[in-house]
Amino acid sequence: MSQAPEDLLISAADEVKIRQNLALVALGKRPANRAIRVGRLLDVHGRRWHDDQEIVVSGRRIAWVGPTGKYPGVVDERIDRSHLAAVPGFGEVHKHIESSHLTPEYEAALVLPFGCTWTCEASHEFSNVNGPKNLEFWLKARLAGSPMKIFPLPGSAVPPTAYEWGGGHFGYDEQRDFLSSQLMVAGLDEVMDWPAVWNPENPSYERLWGMIGATFEQRGVVEGHAAGMRAIDDINAFAAAGMASDHEAWTPEEVADKLRRGLFMEIRPHSLKEIVTGLLASGQEDWSQFALCTDDRSCSDTMKLGATDHNVRLAIEAGLAPEIAIQLVTINPARHMRLTPWVGSIAPGRFADLVLLDDVQTLSIAEVWADGQQVSKGRDYVGALPSIDWPDWATQTVTIDREMTADDFAIHAPEGRQSVNAALLRPFHWADDFITTELPVRDGLVERDPDRNITKFAIVDRFSGEGKTSAMFWLGTGPRTEDTALACSMGHDKHNIWVVGSSDAAMAKAVNALRETQGGWALVGRGELLATVKYEVGGLMTCRPAPELDREMQQLYKAGETIDWMYEPTFSPRWWPGFPERLAFATLTCAPWRWVLVAPSPLAPNGFVNVATGETHDIVW
Amino acid sequence: MSQAPEDLLISAADEVKIRQNLALVALGKRPANRAIRVGRLLDVHGRRWHDDQEIVVSGRRIAWVGPTGKYPGVVDERIDRSHLAAVPGFGEVHKHIESSHLTPEYEAALVLPFGCTWTCEASHEFSNVNGPKNLEFWLKARLAGSPMKIFPLPGSAVPPTAYEWGGGHFGYDEQRDFLSSQLMVAGLDEVMDWPAVWNPENPSYERLWGMIGATFEQRGVVEGHAAGMRAIDDINAFAAAGMASDHEAWTPEEVADKLRRGLFMEIRPHSLKEIVTGLLASGQEDWSQFALCTDDRSCSDTMKLGATDHNVRLAIEAGLAPEIAIQLVTINPARHMRLTPWVGSIAPGRFADLVLLDDVQTLSIAEVWADGQQVSKGRDYVGALPSIDWPDWATQTVTIDREMTADDFAIHAPEGRQSVNAALLRPFHWADDFITTELPVRDGLVERDPDRNITKFAIVDRFSGEGKTSAMFWLGTGPRTEDTALACSMGHDKHNIWVVGSSDAAMAKAVNALRETQGGWALVGRGELLATVKYEVGGLMTCRPAPELDREMQQLYKAGETIDWMYEPTFSPRWWPGFPERLAFATLTCAPWRWVLVAPSPLAPNGFVNVATGETHDIVW
Repeated sequence: MSQAPEDLLISAADEVKIRQNLALVALGKRPANRAIRVGRLLDVHGRRWHDDQEIVVSGRRIAWVGPTGKYPGVVDERIDRSHLAAVPGFGEVHKHIESSHLTPEYEAALVLPFGCTWTCEASHEFSNVNGPKNLEFWLKARLAGSPMKIFPLPGSAVPPTAYEWGGGHFGYDEQRDFLSSQLMVAGLDEVMDWPAVWNPENPSYERLWGMIGATFEQRGVVEGHAAGMRAIDDINAFAAAGMASDHEAWTPEEVADKLRRGLFMEIRPHSLKEIVTGLLASGQEDWSQFALCTDDRSCSDTMKLGATDHNVRLAIEAGLAPEIAIQLVTINPARHMRLTPWVGSIAPGRFADLVLLDDVQTLSIAEVWADGQQVSKGRDYVGALPSIDWPDWATQTVTIDREMTADDFAIHAPEGRQSVNAALLRPFHWADDFITTELPVRDGLVERDPDRNITKFAIVDRFSGEGKTSAMFWLGTGPRTEDTALACSMGHDKHNIWVVGSSDAAMAKAVNALRETQGGWALVGRGELLATVKYEVGGLMTCRPAPELDREMQQLYKAGETIDWMYEPTFSPRWWPGFPERLAFATLTCAPWRWVLVAPSPLAPNGFVNVATGETHDIVW
Repeated sequence: MSQAPEDLLISAADEVKIRQNLALVALGKRPANRAIRVGRLLDVHGRRWHDDQEIVVSGRRIAWVGPTGKYPGVVDERIDRSHLAAVPGFGEVHKHIESSHLTPEYEAALVLPFGCTWTCEASHEFSNVNGPKNLEFWLKARLAGSPMKIFPLPGSAVPPTAYEWGGGHFGYDEQRDFLSSQLMVAGLDEVMDWPAVWNPENPSYERLWGMIGATFEQRGVVEGHAAGMRAIDDINAFAAAGMASDHEAWTPEEVADKLRRGLFMEIRPHSLKEIVTGLLASGQEDWSQFALCTDDRSCSDTMKLGATDHNVRLAIEAGLAPEIAIQLVTINPARHMRLTPWVGSIAPGRFADLVLLDDVQTLSIAEVWADGQQVSKGRDYVGALPSIDWPDWATQTVTIDREMTADDFAIHAPEGRQSVNAALLRPFHWADDFITTELPVRDGLVERDPDRNITKFAIVDRFSGEGKTSAMFWLGTGPRTEDTALACSMGHDKHNIWVVGSSDAAMAKAVNALRETQGGWALVGRGELLATVKYEVGGLMTCRPAPELDREMQQLYKAGETIDWMYEPTFSPRWWPGFPERLAFATLTCAPWRWVLVAPSPLAPNGFVNVATGETHDIVW
């Protein structure tokens, strides 16, 4: 079969050739590459175990599954794993690989030993940096031979709201082209700008519905994102709008309310135990409309906790039968995403992706196989790790054509004033109104007030070259230590640079450091650059092994410990004292966010805008 | 909303407008048309009942579902059905409406009172009569206002084998056009010519794989048909070839073997009880990859037994919980067919299709609603029944431009012979070889032998105008009564005319009667035309109410009782003594059929061919 397709990406033409061959291999009319014998095998379609089974592989796919010794054909290589139990490769129904901060080939090396063989990439991070190259970016590692299957779903949040702009702009045309050009694209990811969906007056209304329409047109899946949406009228409206799922529910009651309106429920780890325990207690027996998902997890956390396997383990600990918990990361998400011909089960025609367990109840993973090849031994990745020379469009994405200065972050008071009223936000500020306070003025500039936990926060555009900057005062976060600033080029979901600091000069210095590194983190302490972490790809990821990135992050945390960080509790249960890493998520602008700070834009000239209503306001007055 | 889409067929552009409106109705920002209060409501996503619920309707869709009295908006009309339990409209995952022999608008009137609000039409009967008009045919009734949703899946069997030809020829181009032009098209129906799928030498190989490829390309579902396929190598090969389902399994073991290879199992009534009972006994708990389906049922049988509800009732009687049995005709088939945004549950965005039960355990149906309107009271249909003037392309399909004569059916012996060897088939003859016998010759013509249950069977082409005829001897069927013949224009799946008779003249007379009526049944007894049944649409269906067709069928059966019918048992458990109605299915040519009789064709000049190998043979020698 020298002309056999490479079978890396999915295409209809290749699919025909691959399956024509597989059928003959299954019949024993052509030789198979490999037979893997396992002690037992979980059929996730019927949720039944089968003892002493053989999985016969041709190319990257499964050709035949059945009792050991019964395959009628010739096999090149026989592998005995009869001491292990085989379950299908795990899948992520909703994950931002960017949040691992690893390029896809290194992400694969990180997560495959944890059983994750396929990922529906919620693609609006890199998309917001370089929209036109979105698909090329996500398919590159696979094309270079990485064994992980990435199914990109272009994100609706490109840009996240009508008040933002930058490296990507997705509407009807772009989504139609993504879906029609590539079968790996499963649909539209997380429609999250709810005010733009329901409200015809919203300036993003046409763009968003264009993407939704294009997705229906191409038989794709329209994924939802219903954060903080608990009122049943909103949930009904969300489902009526065509959303197929939600991954933002926090309580069993919220899950039940969404499930029955037809939303496929994708449960994240932080709310998993409460949800599973609560639903089991209430008598839930049917889990066919559920999946587990990671959404965002840093490589450091994955190294500590695990990947998809961690989610499964949490579900088992919460009382779910292991077999059901495994369905929630295999057949269920594959069915929801309409990917069952390729992933989600150990069955003919699917990629030969196997997780081999030495203990089912604890989900103890001995080996992982992907594309019919062993890719891990214990925690060690032994699969292909292609060397990719990421091009300039991926590595040159912090586009600020000038040195930033303290002046860029100064906030000027109206002429002749000794004090001003200032608008304040807090991290995860979801209230209808912003906070107002009085702040002192010195030399015409409005000042921070560290005694009241008030510091300065800014967003710097990294796309136009001009470094357009919005700055305002924030409450309960940032460094109290003098002449200190923390900057990062990952700022969900638009991924401009955010910077928080106790002096304007330190803020400028931190941002300038990111100009040098082309993205990542920069911590300036007492006027000195203390640490940087490099996300040189898209300003979001690095093309290095996970342990290397983790080491750099640990150094950043260590440097961060020398700083006195302000803290006030806020709405988010995931907002903690200390190094304010989660500020990268406090720049979100999707529902239920209201008042936010974005880079200066035509509809929000100073960057301060209510994304639910479009209202703008002065920073100080 | 005067410019609101009519919302009869599904299109992406309409879908956007419809859902934009629905979201506002759900929020109470626009008035709703109707609220239907029910005593309890089954959420099939979570398999849970909810008491005292209201279903709020806008246009044909559900906008909001929740506790009675909680909807925030204005409602034009309030309906109280608080004494009834609501479950979603039932769906058929695999059905040939042609087998009801009613045009779609009359099919709707027949099956809606039985709860069936949507049907995946396995479209290879009418397709084989008029392929190019296939889609137009199936959408016409809906476009004229019929409340039943028909989702056509073009059949792979057009033509059924490479040895047949006629009104339709579907390959890559046709399937691509069907899927890309119409979102109602869910995929490719029942790939059934298995020898053509696995065997590159088969002359239908390219055509079939072209359809499969086009279906993958457009994200459609590839339905299978694995009749008689029990060897696990075959099942593996079938799944590896990309088939997503099977509806032909007969035993629990066969179901289990297919289920675990990833085939979605569509269970038909005749094998349902054994399968459900057997699987329950073996511990099956997960039914998420199962559906119930009708496949073929005449309108007379539906009037007696019911439609989809009959299947559900059988499953409940076999021991399945009613809630699971209902999932098997609602969410499960909708999910499998990727139609969940439109059908399968009582949830926002879906068509407002409800089955209202006065008893759940017995599935006693009080009312059915479709598109938000009541369409039945008890057994009476009260919904829209559009009057359709079916055009000539639908009603002029028995194209034989000459009078048939006895000569057309004569079988000539080789010169000078007193007896000949003759090939014999029996109904449902699935053996590798045909039967051989000796038959007498008189005046140069080979004669029947009624004493040995041998009569003559013929296929008459009804597409070319020439009335090309293949005739041979058959065993164990047909009339023993002299000068008698039975002819029908429904002959699965090519739907040429088949005719069986005790004299060549009677055979000609019967076929000529069908030329007059443009299709249906014709029974000639003792030289006289005793009865006809009109299937004037496509030669397969009639544009009349079910009771009228039923009356005509009863008259045919009555006339049939005056005839002495030969009988021998055969493989098929559904082959009975008496009027040989099932000869219409004994003309099938898909796997596992082998030797069959088809109309004369380039690859089978006398019509006698082994469809598994392509071998041909003389009729007599």
